[in-house]
Amino acid sequence: MNSKLQNNKQDQHPADFADKLQQLPVEEAVEILRDLPREKASAVLAELDRQNASEILTEFSTDEISRMLIGLPHDDAADLIAGLPEEQHQQVLNQLLPAESVKVSKLLHYPQDSAGGIMTDRFIALPSDATIKQSRETLRSKEDKEYKGTSYLYVVDSNQKLIGIISMRDLVFRMPDRKICEVMDRNVKAVSVNDDQEKVAKLFAQYHYMALPVIETDGRLMGIVEANSVIDVIQEEVTEDMELMVGVSGEETAYTPWRKAVPKRLPWLYVNLITACLSASVIALFENTIARWTALAIFFPIIAGQGGSTGMQTLTVIIRSIALGEISFKDSRNALNKEILVGLVNGLAVGIVAGIIGFIWKGSIILGVIASIAMFLNMLAAVFAGVVIPFGLKIMKIDPALASSILLTTVTEIGGFGIFLGLGTLVLKLSGI
Amino acid sequence: MNSKLQNNKQDQHPADFADKLQQLPVEEAVEILRDLPREKASAVLAELDRQNASEILTEFSTDEISRMLIGLPHDDAADLIAGLPEEQHQQVLNQLLPAESVKVSKLLHYPQDSAGGIMTDRFIALPSDATIKQSRETLRSKEDKEYKGTSYLYVVDSNQKLIGIISMRDLVFRMPDRKICEVMDRNVKAVSVNDDQEKVAKLFAQYHYMALPVIETDGRLMGIVEANSVIDVIQEEVTEDMELMVGVSGEETAYTPWRKAVPKRLPWLYVNLITACLSASVIALFENTIARWTALAIFFPIIAGQGGSTGMQTLTVIIRSIALGEISFKDSRNALNKEILVGLVNGLAVGIVAGIIGFIWKGSIILGVIASIAMFLNMLAAVFAGVVIPFGLKIMKIDPALASSILLTTVTEIGGFGIFLGLGTLVLKLSGI
Repeated sequence: MNSKLQNNKQDQHPADFADKLQQLPVEEAVEILRDLPREKASAVLAELDRQNASEILTEFSTDEISRMLIGLPHDDAADLIAGLPEEQHQQVLNQLLPAESVKVSKLLHYPQDSAGGIMTDRFIALPSDATIKQSRETLRSKEDKEYKGTSYLYVVDSNQKLIGIISMRDLVFRMPDRKICEVMDRNVKAVSVNDDQEKVAKLFAQYHYMALPVIETDGRLMGIVEANSVIDVIQEEVTEDMELMVGVSGEETAYTPWRKAVPKRLPWLYVNLITACLSASVIALFENTIARWTALAIFFPIIAGQGGSTGMQTLTVIIRSIALGEISFKDSRNALNKEILVGLVNGLAVGIVAGIIGFIWKGSIILGVIASIAMFLNMLAAVFAGVVIPFGLKIMKIDPALASSILLTTVTEIGGFGIFLGLGTLVLKLSGI
Repeated sequence: MNSKLQNNKQDQHPADFADKLQQLPVEEAVEILRDLPREKASAVLAELDRQNASEILTEFSTDEISRMLIGLPHDDAADLIAGLPEEQHQQVLNQLLPAESVKVSKLLHYPQDSAGGIMTDRFIALPSDATIKQSRETLRSKEDKEYKGTSYLYVVDSNQKLIGIISMRDLVFRMPDRKICEVMDRNVKAVSVNDDQEKVAKLFAQYHYMALPVIETDGRLMGIVEANSVIDVIQEEVTEDMELMVGVSGEETAYTPWRKAVPKRLPWLYVNLITACLSASVIALFENTIARWTALAIFFPIIAGQGGSTGMQTLTVIIRSIALGEISFKDSRNALNKEILVGLVNGLAVGIVAGIIGFIWKGSIILGVIASIAMFLNMLAAVFAGVVIPFGLKIMKIDPALASSILLTTVTEIGGFGIFLGLGTLVLKLSGI
């Protein structure tokens, strides 16, 4: 891998180069970056995952880091500095050009998962009282890398407050002596620097924006968020949702070294161990029943498995609908009604078959009947838990995905074993054995 | 809900209006759409989920449908027609204006999940031998809705083949008598109409494009895909991944009616019932052992639960990394190595604790020891299955997420119960009870 990297260092896209670099041990990655021409190294650095970038950068001196940040887009530079130890921030900033340093440090003070944290400052703001001709000159004076690829320009008043938007097309075809404020579109949507990146992503998904301006609380235009950065945000949020559901950190990839994966996953396994002990205690309560009617134990994986699967189906649909902004708390009642209907029908369909299996396998009608009933009731509990757990977490201001599958399994196992063994005990009592 | 919809029909964004409409029964939705002004109805229709749109449209006459499609972007019109029964396609197309009909039918023949299916034909193609001045006139003659918001224009040769790209800025500032081919950038990336939408989405995520041109196999420029449509594609693919993992259709939302949800979910529950019966058979093999040593049954949820959780952690990380294009089959070996290390460490950590619990709870050292060993081995099997299952499905050209959690549980339950009860039986034999 290393030699392959060396060979086509030059022609590879920085994003592809960064992907390969992330699979190498940190020391090797550092060595390769040191050997690259400065500009290439900067570009690759900007494409690394945040976590990898910060690990790699700790191996470089403040001097080297500052040099690599020169010429990078300010938002990329700010993201890289944000990954360094706090005490190093100012040192690195001090070694940038004063003009760059000011801009980077402005971006640096927004949280990484806010609109301010994902915006770029490469946009063009035109004063509203400028003429079309003057504005064309402004545009001409900018270098390509100073603004990004949408065809809209933003209009600000004398206090830098965002008051309108104008298309590149209008700038080209309108009469040169008209004022920007006469031709601009005043109907401009914006987000606040403090808005959560998840909220911003939902707006893009819902309204198909190509870009949205980002304003300070006083209305000053600070940057823009573009659809292509939102793609990264969405991928990040989805990875987090999927991983949190099963007790993984939310940032782990297949290449995260095992030393980092273990401390993030193990605590959840211990949590799961505790909940599994709860399920085990339910079984322990009925140890006598099992001793007298061992066939019951055979049905454990069937009862628990169906409950778990049913619940996971519901849970996944709900968590995904919450993430897509399709459902909010006030609609949760409708979702619950639907899931209960699904649970009733599927519970009946699976319960009957499970009963037949019980009867055929063990030749006991009564075993079939209690397996049926337990299955049916447990599947109802499962769909109920599948709706209530994510909304419950949301109400407690916790990520609705967090460890939700572990919570769900707890419900379906305790419920399933409790009902099934409870019924079994009842049968033994009634039959007077 | 209905009356709320009626009240602010006019000022609501079509996307928000569509969201509310999707929560109503089809008949009500149809009624509301009929009452809307034609243009508003078209806009709302274009924002509906595909499945909902096609259900709603079946309630309208071919005449009504055609009228609603007038003025819609051609790609939206094509998507809506694609959702109608095949025999209705031509009828609807016939009632559009001839020029529109040709364009819509061109888009209609690309599969919905291909680059051709997600592209728009609202782009501007400039002939390479035109001058800057002529090109400005071309741009001026286009209506705003004929092209979309990026700042790039595409350059084609006399056969409509894509040969370059030019920025709006160059069009504004270059000398009017220069030819497009002299100032254009020939280094233009494109995707093929037949490329899968997932591949296109990966390109956007990797290289942060704002837009990509889409070409036919002979190089002719057919359309463009923009970052904001890719956002929809990604959300769709993610929903599919998450839902397929647990046995849901991949298109279900919290509002999918229960009648539709049941037939999609139930088959997977039956599959799960079969695999659960396999686990149950393993337990049945050891019925005598359980009868003689009932305490073993108490440990079932602990052994199976930890195996399942460990495997789900691995499975989720792998499926997500495959979806993000971070890992391919040739890197699977590295991923497996990492997961085995994680499994060894976590297996040891959890196994020891489980052993202690076994000892304390039941006062039996030997029970603790076999719980420890079974736990450890089962967690190793779980991480192994978590890597092998998704890559195995991928090799068989099946979606790596499909029912993977059901397959995984089968492995961890059969493995867990088999090892644990096997060891238990061995102990009973050796101790001569």
